[in-house]
Formats: sequence, C-alpha cells, structure tokens
Amino acid sequence: MERLEKQMDFLLRLDRMKQVVRQTYLADGSRKENDAEHSWHMAVMTAVLAEYANEPIDVGHTILLTLVHDIIEVEAGDTYAYDAAGNATKREREVRAAEHLYGLLPEDQGAYYRALWDEFEAMETPEAKFANAMDKMQPVILTDAADGKSWKEHGVHIAQVMGRNARTHEGSEELWTYEEELLRKNREKGNLLP
Amino acid sequence: MERLEKQMDFLLRLDRMKQVVRQTYLADGSRKENDAEHSWHMAVMTAVLAEYANEPIDVGHTILLTLVHDIIEVEAGDTYAYDAAGNATKREREVRAAEHLYGLLPEDQGAYYRALWDEFEAMETPEAKFANAMDKMQPVILTDAADGKSWKEHGVHIAQVMGRNARTHEGSEELWTYEEELLRKNREKGNLLP
Repeated sequence: MERLEKQMDFLLRLDRMKQVVRQTYLADGSRKENDAEHSWHMAVMTAVLAEYANEPIDVGHTILLTLVHDIIEVEAGDTYAYDAAGNATKREREVRAAEHLYGLLPEDQGAYYRALWDEFEAMETPEAKFANAMDKMQPVILTDAADGKSWKEHGVHIAQVMGRNARTHEGSEELWTYEEELLRKNREKGNLLP
Repeated sequence: MERLEKQMDFLLRLDRMKQVVRQTYLADGSRKENDAEHSWHMAVMTAVLAEYANEPIDVGHTILLTLVHDIIEVEAGDTYAYDAAGNATKREREVRAAEHLYGLLPEDQGAYYRALWDEFEAMETPEAKFANAMDKMQPVILTDAADGKSWKEHGVHIAQVMGRNARTHEGSEELWTYEEELLRKNREKGNLLP
C-alpha cells in the first residue's frame, strides 16, 4: 500500500489547485477563476477544438498536458501574465517547486509527470503547441465574455496580449485568426489599450 | 466560421460548471467545491490511479468521460448524493437538459458528447466503470481530509455511503478496499452515523 499512499498524498496535495487564484474572471465577471477550473476548461476546449490543430494531435495526451501543466503552482503560486517582476523569477521558483511536488509520487510516476511538464514548457511537440495555444486562448475568451474586466483593471495593452500569444498560431492558425479578431474587437471597445 | 461559433458558444456555456456548487468541501474544509473542480480532480485521479483498474482501460478516453460527465448540470443543477427527493427527479431533469446543451454543438459533436454521457451513465465499459469509481471516491477522499465535514452537516449514515459506492469495486477492487478502510475509520471517529 505504500505506493498507493504516495499517490493519494500527491492527489490530496493537488486539491490546493482550487485555491490558486488567477487574474482572469469567470465569463460573467462575478469572481476570478482558479487553476483547477482553468485546467478543466482548457482540457474540454482541447477535446472540442482538436480538429483545428495545425498538425494531427493525440487528443488524450494533449488533454493530459493541459490537466497537469499548472500543478507546480500549488507550490509556486500563480504569476500574472502581465507581471514583469513576477515573471522574471517564475521559472526558478517553479523548478524548485517541481522537485518537491513530483517527489511526492512513486519514482516512475514522478518522472512521468515531470516529463509532461517539461514537454508542455518546451513547446516542441504538436500536442504541447496545441496545449499552449489553449492556455493562452482560454483567458482571452473569458475576458472577452467579461467585457475586458481584468484587462481594464490592469491597464493591459493589446501589444502585451499579442506578445503573450506570439506562438498561439503554432498550435492552430485557424483558432489564432479567431482570437486575433476578438482582440481587435476589444481594442476598438477600449477594453485593451493601444 | 459557423461551426466554430457553435463550439465557442458551447465552451462558454460550460463556464457555468464553475458555479455549480457541490456539497463536498475542499480538503481543508474552507469552502465547498464546484463541478469544474471536481471534474478536474477526477481526471487527474484517473491518470494517476489507472494502474489499479480491474480491467485494462484507455486512460485518455476515461479522462474524457470524467471531464464531461457532469456538464449537463450547467442546465440541471447538482443533486446531492443523499437528497432522496432530488434524486427521484434527477434523471428526468438531466435528460431534458442534455437535449438543450448538446444541441448547442455541431450535430456530429453533439451526438459524440451525448454518447460519452450515456456511456458514463450506463457503466458497462471498463472505462465507464473506472470513471464512476473516481466519481464516488473523489468526494470520500476530500471529506475524509476535511474530517467528515459534509457528512456531519447532513447526518449521513455509513450505509448511505456504502450504498452509493455499491459498484465502486467494479472499477477497481484495490481502490475500493482502500476507500472502505477510510469509511470504517470515519465511522469509528463518529463522522459517519451507524
């Protein structure tokens, strides 16, 4: 049972994903979403939108990438996309967090989940490219629905969102075209600064 | 773009999963969890615990079942496991909800997601059996961590949890043994009534 105890400790530890609050509001603007909700939404988006991937993707594997890409944040916390200072130390904090978190699992699984995170971050496989596109697109869709709420609060410029989405087209040209249109519309409405 | 618009409408509609509150508290007892969080947690549990399935399962497919098994609740609401009156009308409310929700998608995808829900509910495939085991086990693990909080609030009897878990062993005998032990421990502590 020692193996199962380790797995259960890891799974209970992940419960904290529900308390890592992001800057993105729910579509109705009522409150900010958390990492567990964001990951679930990205996973379902992956299933529904996989047909738009530039290259054929293994949908199950891509979903797995989306489900666990943020779990190190239970140790390292979330860093807002447009927080320059936080992003400067993000990678270092996350790598330290990863050692502890994946160390909770039996060795073979710890290595497997660590490799999934590395794959997501490296953005080289078609699956990682698509999962990264979902990661960037999900908050844009929600923020558009919430009439730009978090962008307006933080005074975000369209160039910042564009920069953050510089590689979204590598996952899907078609979805990037759709997203670019949403961003332009929000620029026109004044939800994004020039 | 009409197809993509339908898919986006569906995905935005699913944002409400984050507002369907369940009776289960987070592991630290601070608040109740919602359907999006529950589904995400079940999906990760499926990935980590798949090795305990009685029969070999397609992990990607099982994860997909967990991700979408509750989406009809954005239309029908959550029914607490131990609410007898609510459960009497649950199926009828959910079937009505399903027609509207899956109808938002392009026809081929609407049929696909409806079939996934039917598969989960029918509990006949090894994947559906395992996904159902996760659905029953996830709240037990959280409630154990929260020292029986929701059971104590509702005066739940151990026989009720046992009854609800009557088929958990069909997904995994090993995990059911583990869960049964947790339930016995909570009975001894008085968190569950005799």
